[in-house]
Amino acid sequence: MPLIVQKYGGTSVGTAERIRNVVARRIARRADAGDQLVAVVSAMGDTTDELIALARQMTGDPEPRELDLLLSTGEIVSAALVSLALNDMGYPAVALSGAQAGIRTDTRHGKARIAGLDPKRIRSELDAGKIVIVAGFQGITEEMEVTTLGRGASDTTAVALAAALKAGRAEIYTDVEGIYTADPRLVPEARKLNEISYEEMLELASYGAKVMHPRAVELGAVYRVPIYVASSFSEAPGTLIHGDTATGGRGMEQRNKVMGIAQDTDVARITIRGVPDRPGIAATLFEPLGENGISVDTIVQNASVERLTDLTFTVSRSDLERALEIVRPIAQQIEAPQVLADTHLAKVSIVGAGMTSGPGYAGRMFRALFEARINIELITTSEIRITCLIDEKQVPDAVRALHKAFALAAE
Amino acid sequence: MPLIVQKYGGTSVGTAERIRNVVARRIARRADAGDQLVAVVSAMGDTTDELIALARQMTGDPEPRELDLLLSTGEIVSAALVSLALNDMGYPAVALSGAQAGIRTDTRHGKARIAGLDPKRIRSELDAGKIVIVAGFQGITEEMEVTTLGRGASDTTAVALAAALKAGRAEIYTDVEGIYTADPRLVPEARKLNEISYEEMLELASYGAKVMHPRAVELGAVYRVPIYVASSFSEAPGTLIHGDTATGGRGMEQRNKVMGIAQDTDVARITIRGVPDRPGIAATLFEPLGENGISVDTIVQNASVERLTDLTFTVSRSDLERALEIVRPIAQQIEAPQVLADTHLAKVSIVGAGMTSGPGYAGRMFRALFEARINIELITTSEIRITCLIDEKQVPDAVRALHKAFALAAE
Repeated sequence: MPLIVQKYGGTSVGTAERIRNVVARRIARRADAGDQLVAVVSAMGDTTDELIALARQMTGDPEPRELDLLLSTGEIVSAALVSLALNDMGYPAVALSGAQAGIRTDTRHGKARIAGLDPKRIRSELDAGKIVIVAGFQGITEEMEVTTLGRGASDTTAVALAAALKAGRAEIYTDVEGIYTADPRLVPEARKLNEISYEEMLELASYGAKVMHPRAVELGAVYRVPIYVASSFSEAPGTLIHGDTATGGRGMEQRNKVMGIAQDTDVARITIRGVPDRPGIAATLFEPLGENGISVDTIVQNASVERLTDLTFTVSRSDLERALEIVRPIAQQIEAPQVLADTHLAKVSIVGAGMTSGPGYAGRMFRALFEARINIELITTSEIRITCLIDEKQVPDAVRALHKAFALAAE
Repeated sequence: MPLIVQKYGGTSVGTAERIRNVVARRIARRADAGDQLVAVVSAMGDTTDELIALARQMTGDPEPRELDLLLSTGEIVSAALVSLALNDMGYPAVALSGAQAGIRTDTRHGKARIAGLDPKRIRSELDAGKIVIVAGFQGITEEMEVTTLGRGASDTTAVALAAALKAGRAEIYTDVEGIYTADPRLVPEARKLNEISYEEMLELASYGAKVMHPRAVELGAVYRVPIYVASSFSEAPGTLIHGDTATGGRGMEQRNKVMGIAQDTDVARITIRGVPDRPGIAATLFEPLGENGISVDTIVQNASVERLTDLTFTVSRSDLERALEIVRPIAQQIEAPQVLADTHLAKVSIVGAGMTSGPGYAGRMFRALFEARINIELITTSEIRITCLIDEKQVPDAVRALHKAFALAAE
């Protein structure tokens, strides 16, 4: 019997009424089709934010361990409610906390990583004919400490369960109908993709497409779990993220193609002027940032003039203050005279497998932005992505211009 | 270093503000006094009722297992918040779920009994200098299933922990200042007792004094854990429930004394007319009620007339419908012609150790009620209690008359 892991998040678990009429009904319909089912659920509506607000009434600086114990209750409530609704509809179901589901993690509270998964309990419930509802976003350490996997990580729970249970695929039901060639709120003619490769999805997710958590995509790629993203509210076909072939399942003639446009306005830029151009300087700067959990993106070093260079990089805006606290004393120490910061930039990216091996993508991107009178402040590239930093106000124009330039509206 | 187990319930955990300013502050003050501390907390305000309302939106008949998983989150939230507040005030603390605290129960979801307690984790946290906050009302089975102990059972959690940890005493902080000679809302001159025996408290609690959960008192009696009941909001001395001597710690000259008056309006009466007076009939009737979790109280059988008798008993009003569903077919089967039910009665009781061995208590009680023009419908007694069933409307008059007749306002 095929085994499917589903995940329900977003507004589908927003209210008790929707938990019953959307989530439980969809699960029931899938069970009618004869599949064995495991469903991962997020916390209801604003529950997580409300719990954080309660914690903030206690302290400005909550202990991560206590906060995890607190926050984990949100998903347990959802899971129990879905199970109650299914049982009421005549579908035997059982709700499991992360701990009961056998999701073992490391001890990094608030951002724990899954260390292993013991599917014994889930298997025995499935074998007993039950639908298994798992509280997302959480796990347990060897010492029985409750951990959370970080925000949005219920996707990760679902993909990890699919991998451990060798499920046919992980289905992520959310508020959008799938992965689009660009944000449909900016580009009305954006087209829904039937399929996309893990790598492309990872770039889209990492560079601003909010549909899927990048960690979940990464996990899917490593364990080769096909991930299907679709709407909780409609029957419209969604997007399958997979890696069947090097082309991501597409025909060979389509491989040198831009698949989508991503944008990300959560960008802060830091520039250190007059950095001495000698070995080890980059490590001196970036190691302390990494140790403090600050992700650095888009590092650019200018050509050296008189053994001095400018070093520019970006971080997320919420990390800017902490990043500056770390960078400023180091700049002083290495006798760099100036540290500049600004938050008016944003990223636009074009993503597509095999892009850099194909000719002319970068040129077409720069020309499209130029013709839309958009100035490019920084450029970075990966194997399958080209990113330009531009003025935040010009993001909608840039995305529309790129979507048009690469003819993404056409199939 | 003395170890104390505290429990905070009622309105003291009603809001985030009170959790911080009442519960955490009181715990901190006690820690300043140098005691090792374990504090058990209830769910915030209406949380449990809200969770039950959510479950009712899913189903009219929630699975007890799923409901327990759902309800257990309420106390975990409170525990985490208290711990966060204490840490913020500079008092190292750790919150533990019932499972983490090592509270093992049987598998009777919704009304589980504590089977054992593994205090290892609590001990190691105490040894590390931490204040331990335990989510009340819950435990875990051998199969890692979350259970709840029934409503009001956080008191039981506290007393069980005090017993397992060999704590000096269990302190129950609640909305009242202690145990009174009668309900102060009915009898303004009611006097707070400094101490009372387990047995007396058990009768008071079982017969309508809502301050303490009878199970907790019972557990305290079995394990000889002194229980101190006091207000969360004041420094007024409370009442110590203990059993130092056969007289409950009081002087010998006081032992033949009524300690308090209890009243209980949650009474429904069922009368079966014309029951054949033969062996085994009582078992036929009362076994099925017990098996369905219905507690029967106050059983009275009239003298037999022509081998037929009337059997009268009381149940709580919420159990009346289910009790009748069970009783009616049995009555038919044993050819008893009539089953009557009413809900206009209430119980008033006088409680005091050694009362039945002392002379004249029953007589004084009946005279006091007679003089207040109150008709007695049924009478039952225990070693240390005399209970009369009277019209519900006359309860306030009855309590006041009895309080006066036994001179309880005087020390």
